[in-house]
Formats: sequence, structure tokens, C-alpha cells
Amino acid sequence: MNRRMIFYMVGNIIKLEALMLILPLIVSVFYNEINCINAFSASIVAATVIGFLLTIIFDPKDNKVIYAREGFIIVTLAWIFLSVIGALPFVITQEIPNFFDAVFETVSGFTTTGASILSDVESMSRGLLFWRSFTHWLGGMGVLVLIMAIIPTDSGRAIHILRAEMAGPVVGKIVPKIKDTAKILYIIYLSLTILEMIFLLFGGMTLFESAVHALGTAGTGGFGIKGDSIASYNPYLQWVITVFMLIFGINFNLFYLLIIRKFKLVFTNRELWVYGGIVLGSAAVIAVSIYPLYNNISDSVRHSFFQVASIVSTTGYSSADFDLWPDLARNMIFILFFFGGCAGSTAGGLKISRIMILFKSIVKDIRRLLHPRSVASVKLEGKPLDNGVLYGVTTYFALYIVMIAVTFLMLSFEPNFDFEANLTASVSCCNNVGPGLGLVGPMAGYGGYSNFSKLILTFAMLLGRLEIYPVLLAFYPKTWTKK
Amino acid sequence: MNRRMIFYMVGNIIKLEALMLILPLIVSVFYNEINCINAFSASIVAATVIGFLLTIIFDPKDNKVIYAREGFIIVTLAWIFLSVIGALPFVITQEIPNFFDAVFETVSGFTTTGASILSDVESMSRGLLFWRSFTHWLGGMGVLVLIMAIIPTDSGRAIHILRAEMAGPVVGKIVPKIKDTAKILYIIYLSLTILEMIFLLFGGMTLFESAVHALGTAGTGGFGIKGDSIASYNPYLQWVITVFMLIFGINFNLFYLLIIRKFKLVFTNRELWVYGGIVLGSAAVIAVSIYPLYNNISDSVRHSFFQVASIVSTTGYSSADFDLWPDLARNMIFILFFFGGCAGSTAGGLKISRIMILFKSIVKDIRRLLHPRSVASVKLEGKPLDNGVLYGVTTYFALYIVMIAVTFLMLSFEPNFDFEANLTASVSCCNNVGPGLGLVGPMAGYGGYSNFSKLILTFAMLLGRLEIYPVLLAFYPKTWTKK
Repeated sequence: MNRRMIFYMVGNIIKLEALMLILPLIVSVFYNEINCINAFSASIVAATVIGFLLTIIFDPKDNKVIYAREGFIIVTLAWIFLSVIGALPFVITQEIPNFFDAVFETVSGFTTTGASILSDVESMSRGLLFWRSFTHWLGGMGVLVLIMAIIPTDSGRAIHILRAEMAGPVVGKIVPKIKDTAKILYIIYLSLTILEMIFLLFGGMTLFESAVHALGTAGTGGFGIKGDSIASYNPYLQWVITVFMLIFGINFNLFYLLIIRKFKLVFTNRELWVYGGIVLGSAAVIAVSIYPLYNNISDSVRHSFFQVASIVSTTGYSSADFDLWPDLARNMIFILFFFGGCAGSTAGGLKISRIMILFKSIVKDIRRLLHPRSVASVKLEGKPLDNGVLYGVTTYFALYIVMIAVTFLMLSFEPNFDFEANLTASVSCCNNVGPGLGLVGPMAGYGGYSNFSKLILTFAMLLGRLEIYPVLLAFYPKTWTKK
Repeated sequence: MNRRMIFYMVGNIIKLEALMLILPLIVSVFYNEINCINAFSASIVAATVIGFLLTIIFDPKDNKVIYAREGFIIVTLAWIFLSVIGALPFVITQEIPNFFDAVFETVSGFTTTGASILSDVESMSRGLLFWRSFTHWLGGMGVLVLIMAIIPTDSGRAIHILRAEMAGPVVGKIVPKIKDTAKILYIIYLSLTILEMIFLLFGGMTLFESAVHALGTAGTGGFGIKGDSIASYNPYLQWVITVFMLIFGINFNLFYLLIIRKFKLVFTNRELWVYGGIVLGSAAVIAVSIYPLYNNISDSVRHSFFQVASIVSTTGYSSADFDLWPDLARNMIFILFFFGGCAGSTAGGLKISRIMILFKSIVKDIRRLLHPRSVASVKLEGKPLDNGVLYGVTTYFALYIVMIAVTFLMLSFEPNFDFEANLTASVSCCNNVGPGLGLVGPMAGYGGYSNFSKLILTFAMLLGRLEIYPVLLAFYPKTWTKK
């Protein structure tokens, strides 16, 4: 166990956060928000001091070797530190005076959940609104992936960090070197974000609005700046956001394949087809289901596609209050909470490839019942899956359901929320979606929960974003013991 | 594919049902319920004619060989035929005039769910009430297991039928011969049922009441004869039923081990300890949670134990309206819906041994993350589990969650039921528990559902009781094609 390296890495990440906090500071200066300027400046100073202290005290010198267990701990600790420091500006400005609320909001940002405790988002300072959305962007692709992309690292074992932070059943490198992989991912990510900004500007958004929403979409987060999310924006803007929510739910490896002109590999990607099929299928059913409400094909289709894209990509924006939709649409949205986008995207949830593997496992098992001696293997993207991966996915699913059940059970002390709200809040937070149904629906919020419940949901969002294992291991004492 | 043998077996089972229908006929004669006497007589004639027609037309002659696929189809078809014929007395007497209602009630009986569409159970004839509870008893241990116990069968392959009908991840024989295994199981079953009757008689129940409730407890069904289930019976009777619900949730192999004096094997049975731990743990939490409601230790403890025993064993009786309990108790009960009793018992649900295997799989996977080269195997009851069984359990869990999700989604066309009712009804029916929460709570019923939804829930109960695969395979055309 290389403890020095753990805290050294965490220190570096906090330094990076100090750097990143400069951006919302600039926004605050631009809008002349004195309170925010002070808060961000103070937070930057705090982050810089803590970051340098950690990197100096825990300088690992020659021993930069890390293994899987260090990777898990680094990622978990980094995310916790990032969130606590990232919450400072909210607390210092007193715009979110309760510390639990501020941490909830920041974790919801970094984990790209987008669940909010704010009751009046429109009265917030621009600087804080920008920071909120920027945390989505940073958390979406991963903060540690970012650090690998920009800071020179000589550790050949950084793959352990990549694996622990990036979501999906199989995490691989796009190119042989991890540093280059991380760079390519971030270049694609940034380019797509800027592209969306341009489209949004074109539709009449201000620069600030387009930036906030592009960051929120790219990270598949869902923080906006209006009480009704995206409902009051024009249909063109809603369609742009729909398309980009779907884009950011796609495996980023595919964009790289597009760049290097391997079109056939993109076109034959099974996960992409299944993802498209799920979106089209569920949007069609929901469009039919809500047609009587809007009495108009274009509105029904737009709202159904927007919501499906928003939920499948686990973004959480809404173009309408889907909590008021008929049961069929509402229940389908609830089921979609579990799905998530493609592996290797910024989306949360189970991920389409996991669902494909689960489905194929079931088919394999049924076939085994009919032909006891068959030894058919489960394939993904044409390649037979290693038994370890297969078994890992079915076991992960069990753990994932346990996580939701425990979260739900821990919300049992709430006087103000009912079964529906507590269950959908648990599912939504564990999958990093954002809104739930009923009392935590898209036009409501999490502000009414007690501090204890907020802490539980904060933890659930972290578990969901880091896919459970890293967090569990980091809190398991044996992981820390030297071997 | 031995189709003749399939319908021959189904014919035999229908003949057996004709025989079994004589018992409620006797009850009707005893209480002089003319309507019932006619209905049961007509049903017996119908079952006898259909049974003999099938066994004569499809006489398999020399070829009595069956494989796993025939086993699945026989069990599924048998259960469907049994339910439709078993529904006749309700329809003929016009006490349940709607055919969908009658089939729902009968399937709920045979699958030992105990969910009821009746709004006024107390006005039903004695004969029909007895038949309802008797279906629990027949379905609990398995109708095909019964036929193996009493009818001479020369098929050495009857294990396929036993496996398809008996619940749990690993179904084995107690003694080398299947016929003897089935006999032993039924002798234990009958003895325990009679023992419970005696205890109930001793507490002041009439012979009829004690018979109905003993049959309902033994099958872990839950049909009673009062609108408030067991709530109006005295504490002694409630405790007797609590203890017997727990007993019938235990693996029947253990009772056999007790008889042959292998006490050590019983005492060291891990599943039994986990089962006991779950019951004690959750009853303790619930007792504390409901204490403020009753302000009395003995009532809180009695109600909490009663409900936990009732839910874990998937019986579904209630000694109080737990729908009115605090969220913590209510939510724990909802989570317990999923658990089920021990494998090899008459209980439904996932089964404790499956939960143990899932839990151990998770621990194994976490260990694998820390020590990538470890090859620890998962053990159950001290023996290492075959990889096929392990993988089968995790995959079954995924399919099980899909079953619940699909059932829930299919209930989306209900104008009268909300999210909570639809979800808890789906979970409850898929696990053969009986009551749900809210609008389908223990003091409410399923009568308000549309015929379509009743059909969905009927199917869900069958899927849950037969553990999905047999039913799926029977409805899958390829299973039927000759090999």
C-alpha cells in the first residue's frame, strides 16, 4: 500500500481544482458579483494551500508505483475532497448556507446527477451557477482522467486510476499510452461542448446561458438556471439539447474512430444500435401516450424525445413536467432511470453494454436448460466475453440493486416524503439522473429532505458515479493494510 | 420432444384434481350449501372427463422417457389447466362471477400468493373458502410432487419434473428414489399441517377455521376467512400462526434430517441460521419502529414477529394493518417482499440460499479486485459451488428483476391505482407474498384492477411460483420442436 502516493495524487487533484476555480472567478468578475469574487478567491487560496501541503508532505519521491487498490482509494478520496472544497463557494457566499446542502449540490454536480436542493435557482449569482454546471463538466469525463491528460505522469500504472474512475464493464485505452488516451478523450469532449455552445448561441441563448447548458449537457448533469429547467426555451433549443444529450451518452471511443475514419467500426457497434433502439422505441411509446395531453404531434414527439434522451443519458433536464404525464409514460421513464447511456460515455446508470450482457446471460442460461451440454459463450461486439467479465457484470447488477435498496431503506425517517418520492429519489441518485417522480419530480427538488437523508443521497450519488466498488473498498479497512 | 407424455401427464394431474375436489364437496355437504354441492360436483365431472380423455388419447405406451424440456412444459401446462378447472366452482356458484377474477383467485391460491380480488370474503360459502385454502396446500409443496408420491410411476426421469416444480437454486433428492422423496416430503407436510390444526383448535378456533388457516399457513399462502385476516384472533392464535409460518419457510430436508436424528446437520445448516437472523433482526427493528403506535412491548413484538414471519415466508397473513405503520417498518416489509424463505420450503420469493449466494458472489468479486490472482470459490453449506450454479443464480436474479419491471410496466393502464400500489403489487405477486402497500395493502384487495391487469398479475404469480424459466420455455415455440 503506497499511502504517500495516494495523498500525493489527492493533493495534485486539489491543486487542479484550484486552477479550475479560476474560471467561475472570471465569470464573477465579469458580472461584478463581489460576494462571489471573494468566495471563489478564498476557495482558490484554500485549495492551493491544501494541495501544496499534501504534495509536499506526501512526496512519494522514487516510489510512484500503484496497484488497483491504490487506484480505488485515490479516486474515492479525490472525489470526496473535491466535493468538500467545491462546496466552499456556496457556503462562503451564504447562498447555500447549510453545509450539507452545499456538499449535496457539489456532489450532485461532480457526479453529474443534477439533483438540486435549491428552491429558487433563478436568484443565484452567475458565478455560482457557472461553477455548478462546470462541476458537471469536470465530473463527467473524470477529474483524474483530466489530470492524466495535462500533468506529466511517469507512472505506468495509471490505468488503475482510469479503470476506477471511468464507468462501464470494460475500460480500455484508445491508444497505447494512457496520457494520450486521456488527451484524446478531453479534446473530443471539449470540441463537442463548444459545438453545442455554438448551436445554442445560434438559437438565441446568451453566451452565459449557452455555456451553462453546454457544460450541463456534456457532463450529462442537468443543472440549469431556470426553475422550469429547459421548458421555457424554444423548440429549436430543446431539439439541440436533445441531440447533444444523446451524443454525450455515446461511447467516446466511437468519436475517435470517426476521427481516424474507421466508419465501419462505428457503424457496426452493437451497443450504439441497442442504445438507438431503446431511445427510438421508448420515445415512440411515450409520444403516443402523451399525445392526448398536447393534441399535437410535434409537441408530443419533441417532449418525448427530450425526456427519453435526458433520462437515458442520465442528464435530467426536462422540457415539460413529466410527473404530470400518464402512468405509462411516467412508469417507462422510471424504468429508463436504470438504463444509462453507453459505456465510455459521460452518462451514469447501469450502461447499455451491461444491460446487453445481462440479457445475453439470460438467453445463454435458457439455452443451457434446453441443451445442458452446450457451451455457448456470451459475445459482446463480436468478441467472446471473458468469464470473469461476464460474472462480474451479473454480480455488479446484484450489488447495484442492493445499493438502491439500502439507500431507499435509509430514507425511511422522512416525515415529508412518501414511498414514491423516496424510491424514485434513491433510484435517480444512484443512477445519477437527477429528478425523480412525485414529490421529487422534475419541477420539485430535494430541499425538503433532512440533513441525514441528504447525506445518504450524497453518498448514493458517489457510489453510483464511481460504480460502487472503489467507494466500498476505500471505506473497507483491510484495503488500507500493507501487504 | 415426447408430446404424448406431456399431455398424458397433464391428464393425470387433472384426474388428481378431480379427486382433490371431493374434499371441498364434503365440506359443502356438511354445511348443506346446495349451490356449492352442485358446483363442486359439476367441476369434478368436468375434471374427470377431461382427465380421462387426455390420458386415453395421449397414452404414451412404451415411450415414457422425458427430458428437461418436457419437464418444463408439463409443469407449466399442468399449473394452467389446474387453475382454469379450479376456478370453475367460483364461476358456477356465481360467487365470483367474472372469469378473470376466478382464475386470479385460483392462481393466487395454487401459487400460494394469497392476493385476493374479494371485497367481502366473509359472505363466501364455506365450501369455496375451504377450496381456496386447500389450493394453497396443494400448490405449496407442488401438485406434481404429490402425483409422484401417490401414483406409481416408472419413469426414472421424474427428477426433471421435481426440479421444474420445486423452488430454489439446487433441488436434490432426499433419498435415492424420487417416489420415496416425494412421499417423505408429503408425510412431513401433512403431519405439520395437522399439528398446527391441533394447536389452533386448542386456542379456540372451530374445526373449519383451524383447517382453513392450517392449510393457508402450510402452503405459505395467506387466504383467510375474515376481512381483517388474522387481526381479530387472540394473541395465542397469532403466535401459533407466527411459529408455523416460520416453520413452513424452512427447508423440508431439515425436517427429514431431524426425523433420522441427524441433529448436527440441522444445527449447522447455514441457510437456517441466516433465515433466523433475518427474521430476528428485522422483527427487532420493526418492533422498535412500531412501539409508539402500540405503547406496549408485547403487542409491538407480537405484531412485528407476525408480520416478518408472514412476509419472509411469503404467506401474507396480517395481524395488523402494517400499511399504517411508520415508514421504516413499511419500507422494511417492502424489502422483505423480495427475500422469501429457505430453498426447499413452500415459501416463494428469491429464497435465502440465493441471497446468500448473491452476497458471497459480491464478496468474491470485491476480493478479486484486491487480489486479482485469487481463485477463491464460493461455498454454500460448506461445499464449493459449481460455477454453473453460481452463474445461474446471479443471472436468475437479473431475470427476476426484469420480471418485476415488466409486470410493473404492464400495470400502467390503471386509472385507479398509483405508483406505490402498482409497484408493490408487482413485487408482491412476483414473490407470491399477497398484500402490497397503500391501495393494495393488507386490508385492501386486488378487486379494483381491470381484467387486463388481473391477467398480468395472474401471469406474474405463475412466473414467480415456477421460478420463471419453465413458463418462459413453455411459451417459447422452439422448446416444442422435435430434436
